[in-house]
Parts: sequence; C-alpha cells; structure tokens
Amino acid sequence: RDAAARAAALARQNSLTKPPGSLGRLEDLALFMAEWRGTDRPVITKAQALVFAGNHGICAQGVNPYPQAVTAQMVANFEHGGAAINQLCRANGADLSVVALDLDNPTADFTTGPAMTEAETLDAMNRGAAAVDSGADVLILGEMGIGNSTIAAALTSALFDATPADWVGPGTGSDAEGIRRKIVAIEKGLALHGGQNAMATLAALGGREQAAICGAVLAARAARIPVILDGFICTAAAATLHAADPRLLDHCVVGHASAEPGHRRLLAAIDKKAIVEFDMRLGEGSGAALALGILRAALECHNGMATFGEAGVSEA
Amino acid sequence: RDAAARAAALARQNSLTKPPGSLGRLEDLALFMAEWRGTDRPVITKAQALVFAGNHGICAQGVNPYPQAVTAQMVANFEHGGAAINQLCRANGADLSVVALDLDNPTADFTTGPAMTEAETLDAMNRGAAAVDSGADVLILGEMGIGNSTIAAALTSALFDATPADWVGPGTGSDAEGIRRKIVAIEKGLALHGGQNAMATLAALGGREQAAICGAVLAARAARIPVILDGFICTAAAATLHAADPRLLDHCVVGHASAEPGHRRLLAAIDKKAIVEFDMRLGEGSGAALALGILRAALECHNGMATFGEAGVSEA
Repeated sequence: RDAAARAAALARQNSLTKPPGSLGRLEDLALFMAEWRGTDRPVITKAQALVFAGNHGICAQGVNPYPQAVTAQMVANFEHGGAAINQLCRANGADLSVVALDLDNPTADFTTGPAMTEAETLDAMNRGAAAVDSGADVLILGEMGIGNSTIAAALTSALFDATPADWVGPGTGSDAEGIRRKIVAIEKGLALHGGQNAMATLAALGGREQAAICGAVLAARAARIPVILDGFICTAAAATLHAADPRLLDHCVVGHASAEPGHRRLLAAIDKKAIVEFDMRLGEGSGAALALGILRAALECHNGMATFGEAGVSEA
Repeated sequence: RDAAARAAALARQNSLTKPPGSLGRLEDLALFMAEWRGTDRPVITKAQALVFAGNHGICAQGVNPYPQAVTAQMVANFEHGGAAINQLCRANGADLSVVALDLDNPTADFTTGPAMTEAETLDAMNRGAAAVDSGADVLILGEMGIGNSTIAAALTSALFDATPADWVGPGTGSDAEGIRRKIVAIEKGLALHGGQNAMATLAALGGREQAAICGAVLAARAARIPVILDGFICTAAAATLHAADPRLLDHCVVGHASAEPGHRRLLAAIDKKAIVEFDMRLGEGSGAALALGILRAALECHNGMATFGEAGVSEA
C-alpha cells in the first residue's frame, strides 16, 4: 500500500467543493483505490469480472433443490449473456470472464473424505490466479456452483466457530428440511475435518471455485489490484485466506451484504462493511458488480470535482 | 399506478434465470418502475436531475458556519460542472439542471414571521413543477441552500413531532454551539407557527427550494414519472406533501439514508427505506444520483436477462 498516494488523495478530498467528509464512504473508496493503485488520482480504465464455477460431491447429501446440471447450464447462460451478472457487468462497465472448473468431475463428498486433494486445491488456486488480468484496475469476483452455500457454511463453521446452524441459510431456496440436511452434512464434515489449518480446511471442505477465488485474490494483491468480493459464498472462500493472515484481504472490499444470513456474521468476523445492502442472494458476482457502479462514482467525484480555489467558493 | 403492468413485470421476474426473489430489492425497483411507467418492460431513456437553490432569512440566527454567498457560488459551480452532483449525474447518465430561486432575496427569518407568503410559496412550487421534463423516465431531486438543514429540521419538527433536538444535526458542519443555535431558532419558529396545516407550515418554516421540490414531486406524479429523493433536506421538503396525504409520495423512492441524524427518523416517519446507506451528508441530489445507477442496474437485469426457457436452465 502506498501511504503517500493515500495522503495526497486525502489532501485532494479535503480541497474539493464540499464540507470535508460529506461524501462519506465515497471518500473512503477513493482513498482505498489511491493507496492500492499507488496514485492520488486513481482511475478505472479496465474492470475485470471473474466468475468461477465448480461442482460439489456434497450434493449427494440432498443439500440443494436444483439438479447439479444447472451449474453447466448457468455457465452456458453466462457465455450467452443471459444471466444477471452479464447485465450488471454491462451496466457498470466490467469485462466478464467465466472459468468453469472441471464441472464433469465434482469434488468428493466431504462427509466421507476430503473434498479435494492438496494437488487439486493448488491446481484450482493456480487457475484462479492465472485468470487475473494484470492490466485491470479493479477485479470483481463471483461464483456459481450448485450446492456451494453448504460449502461456504462448512468453511465458515470450521474457520470461525463450530456451530453450523449459525452459518446455514436457505441458499438458492432450501426449505426447513433442506436446511436441516445442510446442517447434518456440515456436522459430519466438521467431525471428519475440523481443527486443521486454513489451506487444509479449504481442501477438505471447500471446492474448486472457492480455491480459484483464493488464488485470484492472492494474484490481485501481488499486482496491487483492488478486489470487490461478492456475497456469502465468495466471502467465505476469501475468508480462508483471512484465517491464515487477515492482511491478505486488505485489498478487498465486499460489494454487498447478502440476504443469506451467514453473510452478516461473516462480515463481522472479518471486520468488513459491505458497500450495498439490497437483500440480494444470487451469487455470480452480482452484488460485487452492482457495487462497481458506486466505486466508479467515488472516483468520478474524486477526480472530477473542482477545488474551493478553482471554483471560487468560500470555505467555512 | 398500473397494476397490470406490475403483475406482468412480476411474472417476467419469476421467469428469469435466478431463484425467485434472489435479486432482492433490484426486483422491487423493477416492479416499481413498471407500475409507474405503465409497462412491463420499463426503460430509462432520459433521466432528469433538478437541483433547486434558495437562500434563507434564518441565517441571521447564526445557524450555519458558511456565508450565505456560498449558495450562489455553488450554483455557479454546478453550472461549470465542478460539484459532486455534476460528476454523479455524468457517472449515471442524468441530465442536470439547476434552478436558482431568487438568491438575492432570501426568505424571511421565521423566528420573527413566516418565511414566505402564500403567493411566494405557490410561485416557488410552480417554478419547481415547470422545471420537470415530461419526457423524463425518472426524476432526481436535490437542493442547495446555506442554512437549509435548519429549515428541514423546523419542517419535520412541525409536521411530525415538536422536539427540535431530535431532528437537528451538524448539517454542513455545525459544532455543538451551532447545533444549539439551530434548536433555539426552531423552538422560536414552532412557538410562532406551530399547529398549522402542511401547506401553511411549508410557507411559514420552509423556503423556496423546499416549495419547488414539492411542486416538482406533484408534477412528476401527474406525469407518472418516478422520483428519487435525496437526503434529509430533500425528503423533509417532500414530507410536507406526505403530511397532507401520504399517497402523494407513492411514486417516490429515497436514494440514500443520510448521515444527518434526522434523516433515519424521517424515513421511519414516512415509511420509506433508502436505496443506499453510505454516510453521505452533502445534499445537491448526490445520494439520489448515486442511487440512479442502482435503478439502472435493476432495469438492465429485468429487461436483459434470459428466462429459464430461453436459456435451457432447469428449475428447482
């Protein structure tokens, strides 16, 4: 992080024609971009959105009302421009790429063994990292994977607190019985795989799109590209890095607070405040792409406003 | 409101490739636009932003740290494109017009008499109404006027609850002593002008930009143009219409919840939930213009997404 760029950006904010601080979190976002991009006048010339898709052996436990084939069907929908994330990326000027990770070869059912080997985990992390465009000014991350709200709750239960019921919600639409099945599956997973370090937990309870998100977050940090995380599932994936070292998410903001109940608890656990709260619970990066518009607005104000001196406006 | 258009828009939402309801309040916004624009596929071809500016006799009571000349200076800044609202309108595609209302002739000091005559109030309402472009698909309203956070708190104290301290905040930057002066001024105003009907209250305690906002809200409703209100001062102005008949604000959403403490209380009083909460407290329509980006995103999803049938995606 570039403290000098942040300080220069703050000085500029305080010279603009508004009461100091009156643009609230728009000012915070401008300073955040300044320190990570290393300039007091950060711009977004290229915004990249990456959606990682994976399939999960845990679906054998009846944790999701949709058939697992929907993951590939939705990938095709992303590729043809028909999903919510396509519209939100177009609306806010992000280039969307979808990375399908071995959809025909789901991870293993974590109630009977680790979801992934270490080699599979690292391969997915590498594919996530390799997908990051080093020329991007900001990276939006999202995911698609039938069953992966159970994966997210398993990860957060293992990383933060071993009470699955606190982390489980309806996901794409589970009823009370479905939620019970999710809790039972996670309890079995924790009994088998609890108490390990962050990366071993990711392998045992996570999935390929979760590992890919971790790889992309690390690659973005190395390239000083700020990241907008999406909802519960995306944030839970990144939280495995936070469990290893909280500073690994310093370059990340969270686009929205999901209606999936575990997300607010997770935001508190990693000490992040969402940009938007709009009762969304779709995934795909949709909340992160929505927040991109607000990030762009923050930089438009930062770069485009006149100073008191330029405008001939009297100060208090 | 067109109930058939809303029902058709809801049917479309439920056919799109996402779990029903998973886009949360983006879905609500699409239905809101559908019912007011009278079509199941509402679009925003033209977004109009209007900022009304006025000056206030109450400044004689020392309620604002800025000199009153700043109102005209900021109007010039709007006209030259240097203010926050200019950047936010450009970022989200709104056409901005600024209407300066007799800045050289401030309203009267309401601690000694009514701020405006009935004729002055109606003139300002008419000028607000006349400024509305009947060809707009959505209208953003904002205001500028040194001293007008005191005006807003005076209006809400009179309309909803006679405890000024509950409604008064720092505004553009008053310290504790400045806040005390605001409370004292409002108490004097309520003693002189309390207990009147909504329009008489607007005349006695309001100002020209408040009356213009009321006129614009009414004109937009007549033309079925949905309105995005801004923060405390803009919402307080519109609340005078709500006090007369709550249905007069049915076509209005509130763009953001301001950091000015009275705004959340006011949103509860008029039963509106803001689109964004970002600790902003600038006025000018800035929070409403920021929310326009989210409204646009809602319609992009509504109109652009594929249905389950079109995309060949299995339903639950």
